[in-house]
Amino acid sequence: MAAAATLRQVGAYFGRSLPRRAVLTVPSSDWKKLTKLTTFTNTDCVVLDLEDGVAETAKKLARENIFRYLNESVSKINREICVRINAVSSNHINDDVKLLKDLSTSIDCLFVPKVDTVDEMKWLADRLGSNRQYNLVLYCESARSLVDLRSILTTASSLFSLQGVVFGSDDFSADVGINGRYSLDAVELTYARQKLVTICRLFENAQPIDMVYINFKDLDGLKKQSEQGAAWGFTGKQVIHPQQVPIVQAAFSPSESSTTWAKELIEAYEKHEKEEGKGAFTFRGQTMVDKPLLRRARHILNMTR
Amino acid sequence: MAAAATLRQVGAYFGRSLPRRAVLTVPSSDWKKLTKLTTFTNTDCVVLDLEDGVAETAKKLARENIFRYLNESVSKINREICVRINAVSSNHINDDVKLLKDLSTSIDCLFVPKVDTVDEMKWLADRLGSNRQYNLVLYCESARSLVDLRSILTTASSLFSLQGVVFGSDDFSADVGINGRYSLDAVELTYARQKLVTICRLFENAQPIDMVYINFKDLDGLKKQSEQGAAWGFTGKQVIHPQQVPIVQAAFSPSESSTTWAKELIEAYEKHEKEEGKGAFTFRGQTMVDKPLLRRARHILNMTR
Amino acid sequence: MAAAATLRQVGAYFGRSLPRRAVLTVPSSDWKKLTKLTTFTNTDCVVLDLEDGVAETAKKLARENIFRYLNESVSKINREICVRINAVSSNHINDDVKLLKDLSTSIDCLFVPKVDTVDEMKWLADRLGSNRQYNLVLYCESARSLVDLRSILTTASSLFSLQGVVFGSDDFSADVGINGRYSLDAVELTYARQKLVTICRLFENAQPIDMVYINFKDLDGLKKQSEQGAAWGFTGKQVIHPQQVPIVQAAFSPSESSTTWAKELIEAYEKHEKEEGKGAFTFRGQTMVDKPLLRRARHILNMTR
Repeated sequence: MAAAATLRQVGAYFGRSLPRRAVLTVPSSDWKKLTKLTTFTNTDCVVLDLEDGVAETAKKLARENIFRYLNESVSKINREICVRINAVSSNHINDDVKLLKDLSTSIDCLFVPKVDTVDEMKWLADRLGSNRQYNLVLYCESARSLVDLRSILTTASSLFSLQGVVFGSDDFSADVGINGRYSLDAVELTYARQKLVTICRLFENAQPIDMVYINFKDLDGLKKQSEQGAAWGFTGKQVIHPQQVPIVQAAFSPSESSTTWAKELIEAYEKHEKEEGKGAFTFRGQTMVDKPLLRRARHILNMTR
Repeated sequence: MAAAATLRQVGAYFGRSLPRRAVLTVPSSDWKKLTKLTTFTNTDCVVLDLEDGVAETAKKLARENIFRYLNESVSKINREICVRINAVSSNHINDDVKLLKDLSTSIDCLFVPKVDTVDEMKWLADRLGSNRQYNLVLYCESARSLVDLRSILTTASSLFSLQGVVFGSDDFSADVGINGRYSLDAVELTYARQKLVTICRLFENAQPIDMVYINFKDLDGLKKQSEQGAAWGFTGKQVIHPQQVPIVQAAFSPSESSTTWAKELIEAYEKHEKEEGKGAFTFRGQTMVDKPLLRRARHILNMTR
Repeated sequence: MAAAATLRQVGAYFGRSLPRRAVLTVPSSDWKKLTKLTTFTNTDCVVLDLEDGVAETAKKLARENIFRYLNESVSKINREICVRINAVSSNHINDDVKLLKDLSTSIDCLFVPKVDTVDEMKWLADRLGSNRQYNLVLYCESARSLVDLRSILTTASSLFSLQGVVFGSDDFSADVGINGRYSLDAVELTYARQKLVTICRLFENAQPIDMVYINFKDLDGLKKQSEQGAAWGFTGKQVIHPQQVPIVQAAFSPSESSTTWAKELIEAYEKHEKEEGKGAFTFRGQTMVDKPLLRRARHILNMTR
């Protein structure tokens, strides 16, 4: 995974995690799909799934496939490759942890679904041990998880390299009793989505990753919801079908003008730091460059590799 | 109240409280209205009011009416009969508590308005004593109540059998300074309503009951707001006029297809439990049956008696 | 500033702070603009800015102008005159604090931007000392500030006379990653704005002051956003251009009928207090006068001087 390593360095340079615009989940029980991943060169992030995308009877096969795919010299995708294990509260977690420890190499990022409590994070860190530092993306999929999200992320970021939070809209809605046939602007989920984005921003690298658009044939609806998510502060979105990838990648990519702005601001900042030391300075005549602005510029550049 | 007792058993069977789709409040000072309640066979829940619906000068009469209605052999409604007392912070509370203690039978459910603090719940529990276990529905009607709702419900559920939370939109709006002439989708209250539903879901049986639709002649607007509330996760709605009842009952009733789905899922779950013991299992090919799903199914069945 | 003092007494009479419907910020580095302030007799509140409206190189000049304007006998505006200092976390704060202590008179109200932590409030109170009691309006402009707003206001109100909270939408959006080209109803900020209003209402005098409408040529859009803010419970709005003032002042002023209602309610309350002592009473036949209602009436009168 040399390519992913290089990408991570880019992220480090900007003090941010890797971009994860389109997050594509693939059922690990399907070997054919794993070998075809090389064609998905246009998605930022691929997640090999052990959870909801894999039938109960195929969990063992899925683990074997992941072991084979990551350890053997198969032709790999030139993108970040992650693994979504089963929930800590599920009866598959012990076998999933064993798989992670058996792998000869670290995975790029660990995706953990249905994180409801601080204790689940502690239990998982304890079981994984301290030999490897895991990048971690967790799923917020219940009322409890949303209400306690700040505590959960505080703990998660102390035990892992916290990279993001996925809003698991369907499980969240089932838990809260929200009707899953959302209106076009998903107004039912305004509170949950906007709170999640806000809480994520308390943590340097916690990217908020938006809900799935289930009707994968409605690309126009997908475009609208993706652009809404991007405008609200989400940095990426789950995708369930290859056709969704280019639309989602585009919606979460910054415009050319904002990229130019960000590049110039970072350059001006670095010049200022070298010549005059720390402290605020003016940019393009009026704008005072302060931390939020710098962070925003880095984020934009981060999204345009 | 044998009928109500039977209904409560149905609720218990599904591990949930009784459905309270339309919650009709009746001024207890009006004896004629009490005796006419037998015609309201289509509403889930009737609340005999001692609070805002009763003039200051008629509080005593209202208490006498409730005593007479619940203790004497008048022809009673075949639905849940509740009592809304005055706020714990009001100067009527001592007389209301005395009434509750004087009744020869427990009321089906106690409705407590304007609960702003944890201490009010403690005070009330202390005054009512421990001889009877009260079912309790409380009203969230201020900024303070909404902000502290989780603590309030934690305490309430430890002292009572917490059954629900009513969103008192008009008092809430007056407290917060929100203009009470809401837009059709009541966007002014998005944060309050969605937060209330989310917090309720942390407590097994706390049904979120939605705002009143004041303009009782506008049945089309009522239908829209009821359907919005149901889609957002509310399980019922306050009504102020008999004409509102059928529309609200319908909006909060599950569809036929979801009822079928829920019945089959519960059956499959019980069969699985009997034959294979605890643990997750597959349903209708793909769906993994876990707790949120089971809870959702029980909730749906609970709403279709 | 005799006029402002009189106004403050009016506020005190109603147990509320002064109205701050249109809050106009003026760059203190521009002496001409300061002397022209006398023409702004239609705005409730003028803020002499030391922060974002003043270039880095002009901070010193801006402080000198404020000193001269407030200490010398120039012709002053007959409105509340406030000063916005730089953020406590900025490297200008020591010079700004020195200016405040050097002034021969208290300013009407101190505006403090970018308050992110409780500690910033403590630090500022400590530096300003206890000789003068400062009226204070703070800005909520980041995810952290919004999430911790209740704690921040609790501390602020214990150390200062807390008067209001301004929602700094642009910095908030940059911090959270929200796209600053808001939709007409700024749906991107629903959670932040409605939470801010709700939290403010926990504190007796903390007026929630709404976001800036950047496009100052679009007066129709400004009117819509102002009316939305007023309907949501904001009591005022930041303005950046004189043309915006009358529209904003009007949108946050109560209607004639509600003013009449409020006057009569307060009169009835005072009569009741005198004749029958404490306790609830009926108004206009049906309405029970309780605290939220009284508070609402006072707020309305407060907005109509």
